[in-house]
Amino acid sequence: MDIRAYLRERKTLIDAFLESYFSAPVNPKTLHNSMLYSLHAGGKRIRPILCLAAYEACVKDSTAKIEDIIPYAAALEFIHTYSLIHDDLPAMDNDDLRRGKPTNHKVFGEGMAILAGDGLLTEAFYLLSNNTQYGYHLSHSAVLRVIREIAIAAGAHGMVGGQAQDLLSEDAEPDAETLSFIHTHKTAALITVSVRSGGILADCSDYELSGLTKYGENIGLAFQVIDDILDVEGETEVIGKPRGSDEKKKKMTYPKLYGIEKSKERAKELINAAINSLETFDEKAEPLRAIAMYMLERKS
Amino acid sequence: MDIRAYLRERKTLIDAFLESYFSAPVNPKTLHNSMLYSLHAGGKRIRPILCLAAYEACVKDSTAKIEDIIPYAAALEFIHTYSLIHDDLPAMDNDDLRRGKPTNHKVFGEGMAILAGDGLLTEAFYLLSNNTQYGYHLSHSAVLRVIREIAIAAGAHGMVGGQAQDLLSEDAEPDAETLSFIHTHKTAALITVSVRSGGILADCSDYELSGLTKYGENIGLAFQVIDDILDVEGETEVIGKPRGSDEKKKKMTYPKLYGIEKSKERAKELINAAINSLETFDEKAEPLRAIAMYMLERKS
Repeated sequence: MDIRAYLRERKTLIDAFLESYFSAPVNPKTLHNSMLYSLHAGGKRIRPILCLAAYEACVKDSTAKIEDIIPYAAALEFIHTYSLIHDDLPAMDNDDLRRGKPTNHKVFGEGMAILAGDGLLTEAFYLLSNNTQYGYHLSHSAVLRVIREIAIAAGAHGMVGGQAQDLLSEDAEPDAETLSFIHTHKTAALITVSVRSGGILADCSDYELSGLTKYGENIGLAFQVIDDILDVEGETEVIGKPRGSDEKKKKMTYPKLYGIEKSKERAKELINAAINSLETFDEKAEPLRAIAMYMLERKS
Repeated sequence: MDIRAYLRERKTLIDAFLESYFSAPVNPKTLHNSMLYSLHAGGKRIRPILCLAAYEACVKDSTAKIEDIIPYAAALEFIHTYSLIHDDLPAMDNDDLRRGKPTNHKVFGEGMAILAGDGLLTEAFYLLSNNTQYGYHLSHSAVLRVIREIAIAAGAHGMVGGQAQDLLSEDAEPDAETLSFIHTHKTAALITVSVRSGGILADCSDYELSGLTKYGENIGLAFQVIDDILDVEGETEVIGKPRGSDEKKKKMTYPKLYGIEKSKERAKELINAAINSLETFDEKAEPLRAIAMYMLERKS
């Protein structure tokens, strides 16, 4: 399959939803602009795309359309965007650039950036719970399960915990256990739940969900290892931030602990494990497999 | 009724739930401690208490117990606590003291305080969606409605929007419209939804919900007007922060715009309107009425 065309097409779908989203403008206008600034700052929409792809891989109802679950997929992008705004703050990673643009607090100030993040996180749960409005019929218990799983993955037992450990580990000597904790929680948890959510909304079997979970955990870890590699080897213009910024901030990274070659090997192993975990899935899981392969090639 | 005894008893119930809550500790430990520090910093638990009281005023099922909805009530306290942590940050109100104790970022640093707030907000949605675990049976559609309403009231169209306007209005000339926007969104929205949530979980009628909503809006506004008055007239040791801190921060407040006497009159009018909105409710709404009366007497 043409994975680039697929990703482009799916990104267009998600972007169209996000662009029409705040039709009832948020007051005050500055908050509105601050939230939209980061939401439309050129994200790859990988988490929503994974959610849609997992849904397609599992759904049996022939009348089901991916349009039905776009609000749920988009909620994952709201959460991802909020996490980037807060991570970039001076009290956290103190980044001036994100995807080649000034970070949110550089444009709107720290207070407004904190509130924009708070607003996006809360809006995600509105999107997830607003299933009466989109005119489709998913089971309430599946929706509640998705909300619960996303709250766990995004919260203190997941992404927020990973970010806290990351914050505490700057300047610390790298160690394998801490690095694994940070990667698993900060990045892999939200990616895994993105995949699982698609499966749960498609009413997949426990066996399928177990395969999706292994897939998600493996690509989630691979995603972070590749991010770390790109920070060492990527082109500043392509990655959208200065190369070597992890090193400069004394971040604990995979290349720092294991070296660049071992890191590349590890990324390949993880991607292979992800693909293997889908071996009982049929051709409807082809996009999930192709996304995993594509991760090894990504430059930004 | 003895409202002080009632409030004490209800606070004890909520506190017991909150204290046993993080039995699976959050990692890293510093994040755990930072979240618990503010959760246990002496809040009055007024939002959860309102939720329980509205539930009791409306519930018809004689086997229903308020214990059934404590997790939902507690979620409102998680959201309130997160909002205080973020409001106190240097980039926002820059407060050193809250309820007589150093603010979260003074103890744990700004980055950890931001994350503790993020963690509490996210955990609230876990609590709200985790209805399979507590062994009771509320309708899934009522639970989803409560999640949706809380997300609206707490988010950019509610509390976060109010805080953003508050931030933008420091140093600005006071005007009635802006002040009303700030009070309605920053404080009254979450208080109103606390009351509504109790009603919705009790499967109340639309007519009852409309009464509860008017009650919530009026006590929500009264609560903020009284807060503004206490900042001018309260005792530092009782209000837990230096008197006059709104004035010092050039906050737009009710007494600043209308004077202290007019503000006291307005608080009384609002409390009366709240009580009047419950006139068709029977004696089960007595706690709601007594809470409204009590607000006029509060000193902190």
